[in-house]
Amino acid sequence: MTRQPAITPFGYDDPAEAIAVLLARLSPVDTETLPAERAAGRVLAEPITADRPSPACDVSAMDGYAVRMADLANGSLPIAGEVITGGAPPAMPSGAVLRIFTGGAVPPGAEAVVPREHVDEGHDAIELPGDLAVQPGQQIRRVGENAQRGEVVIEPGCVIDATIAAALATVGAVSLRVYRRVKLKALVTGDEVAKPQAAVEPWQVRDSNGPALGAMFGGVPWVEWLGVEHAVDDAALLEGRITGALGACDALLITGGVSMGDRDHVPHTLATAGVELLFHKLPQRPGKPLLGAVGPGGQAVLALPGNPVSVMATARRFVVAALRKCAGITHDETVGLVEVTNADDKTLPLHWSRLVRWVGDGEVELVATRGSGDIASAARSDGFVLIPPGEQGRGPWPFYPWRVGG
Amino acid sequence: MTRQPAITPFGYDDPAEAIAVLLARLSPVDTETLPAERAAGRVLAEPITADRPSPACDVSAMDGYAVRMADLANGSLPIAGEVITGGAPPAMPSGAVLRIFTGGAVPPGAEAVVPREHVDEGHDAIELPGDLAVQPGQQIRRVGENAQRGEVVIEPGCVIDATIAAALATVGAVSLRVYRRVKLKALVTGDEVAKPQAAVEPWQVRDSNGPALGAMFGGVPWVEWLGVEHAVDDAALLEGRITGALGACDALLITGGVSMGDRDHVPHTLATAGVELLFHKLPQRPGKPLLGAVGPGGQAVLALPGNPVSVMATARRFVVAALRKCAGITHDETVGLVEVTNADDKTLPLHWSRLVRWVGDGEVELVATRGSGDIASAARSDGFVLIPPGEQGRGPWPFYPWRVGG
Repeated sequence: MTRQPAITPFGYDDPAEAIAVLLARLSPVDTETLPAERAAGRVLAEPITADRPSPACDVSAMDGYAVRMADLANGSLPIAGEVITGGAPPAMPSGAVLRIFTGGAVPPGAEAVVPREHVDEGHDAIELPGDLAVQPGQQIRRVGENAQRGEVVIEPGCVIDATIAAALATVGAVSLRVYRRVKLKALVTGDEVAKPQAAVEPWQVRDSNGPALGAMFGGVPWVEWLGVEHAVDDAALLEGRITGALGACDALLITGGVSMGDRDHVPHTLATAGVELLFHKLPQRPGKPLLGAVGPGGQAVLALPGNPVSVMATARRFVVAALRKCAGITHDETVGLVEVTNADDKTLPLHWSRLVRWVGDGEVELVATRGSGDIASAARSDGFVLIPPGEQGRGPWPFYPWRVGG
Repeated sequence: MTRQPAITPFGYDDPAEAIAVLLARLSPVDTETLPAERAAGRVLAEPITADRPSPACDVSAMDGYAVRMADLANGSLPIAGEVITGGAPPAMPSGAVLRIFTGGAVPPGAEAVVPREHVDEGHDAIELPGDLAVQPGQQIRRVGENAQRGEVVIEPGCVIDATIAAALATVGAVSLRVYRRVKLKALVTGDEVAKPQAAVEPWQVRDSNGPALGAMFGGVPWVEWLGVEHAVDDAALLEGRITGALGACDALLITGGVSMGDRDHVPHTLATAGVELLFHKLPQRPGKPLLGAVGPGGQAVLALPGNPVSVMATARRFVVAALRKCAGITHDETVGLVEVTNADDKTLPLHWSRLVRWVGDGEVELVATRGSGDIASAARSDGFVLIPPGEQGRGPWPFYPWRVGG
């Protein structure tokens, strides 16, 4: 029987190094302009500056009374009127106060705001307690104290979350330059794999990798999920699929066929299709055969081992990292640490992703599993902890939830 | 001037108690049926059982050779054929082996699989090393070892993430009962609030609360975001808006007008509209005036203080908890713990949500802020840590990222 030549492993001791090598070869996609109300969850591609100071004028920080300092010696002060919140401030009287509410514009000449709960409020006047201490400027938020006009308030490269959306609205940014969504496609290989809706013989399995990848990435707002194609384990047919897919996407995922078996056509077919291999095989479980590469057009290419849990674990860590880079996100994904409440003494000479489920804030427990084909156990997990070679115990360990965050 | 009667605070020492009281009064929304490929991110409303054992027959765990134990005494065994992966297994010969690949159906009569790397492979035969130890059943995944036919493999109440999607596909669940999306609406009050696209005077602010809530909830797959209405600070007009909104939604958010100022019409207007108040004012910063209630149709009602950071922090914690209950999610949101690298010695006699940004795995740093109106600082944060009254230091503390997870 003919054997294909072995591809040299690139020999990264730590999968994180392989990720760094891949990311260094990827570039952000193009940009487009969107109305702000449609840009939530997308990646900002331009710095945003304040169009006016924030606050735009001196405003009251509380409900109370605008006062002049010189008037405070009087124990009683008439209420001369009211600042209409959202309206132009009236002139500040002398020897009297103006009622003001949180966010109201401080009238020119007013030197402080006295909170209403510090005074005795009458209908027409307020009484100041004898021991009331009022600092000049108290309860006044000064014009520009949050941001000056022209100051960059948001840097590009961030995902537009609630706080960014609020800041964009505040500075009147109604049209935004954002990165377009990363076009992501998946090819599922494996002659034994049937579509989920198919009637199956006992020796067939329904494809779970396509649905898993769709669920993981289909809802990410900065990803355009192009869906799954099924490819048979034939090198020539596979090459055509790969070439076709690379012409349509920014990132290509392939599941299965990446080990060194006779039917594992993916590594050589990728090379034939002009894809540059960056790493193949990493010291990790699951996902040892993982292959990372860059396409002729700079596409991110990740060939994932075909076992379902291998697909999910490698997609969650490696594919997410690659997609973030393609999407224009400038910061690495940061992950929380969790402690394992039912830690055992098992250890591996590999970087080990172990399935866990949440049991409390900052605490997880290991989910028993029969290996990378055991989808039922994976479905009982909330994510995995990453345990370095030779280590064991409660941790804390980095935790990757299945759900992809911003 | 007329003063409205004070509403009695309900006096929860811990905001978590108030959340529990609110959740106890909320019920999941109705269910609907969806094709599985459109159900990612939704909440499963039925238990899912295995339609066949998993694996559905004995399958090989590796690439190798199917053998009979009695034949292993021979040092050399002819290769009689091959198991086509995805095909029916051939009959198992005696005195010979069959080539088999990962996932291939183990032929009846085969008693173990010997990995190809353990033997010397020739074209027509394999040589077994003299010291090769083969255990009966090795490298065979047994029918049903992951799940038996009829076994519940997924319980209802979970968000359909990648692992659940994989499990659903594996058992052939192509049509699913899921909870319908939670209809969420927001009313933004405040006469000083202009729409984001409006030209604004210095004493006006553009509304940032509507965009913040839209960004926080608009992309959550189990939420149907009905958008924002702006309401002026007039009790009668507000009551009409509240009544109208309650007729259309499962959960209603109101921002602003919830303190005890003369213009804070929300608490009393809610009562007039038949909404039952459960708590008002909690010992927390920001968000002290927060009001939680349940509408006449069982709607979750949360009136958030109007300051932008108060809105974001209370929405992230309280609204998310309420929406999860309405959505049919059966487990509480669990949160990671982080350490604060630049902890100071400040402390408050309140439950304190402090803005932080990620600096490394499991580590955050405090973001300097000028208070709950300081949107620019909030935009530099990734979320907040929750610090109990009187406490300070590195933590670890519970961390709420702005992005709402599954």
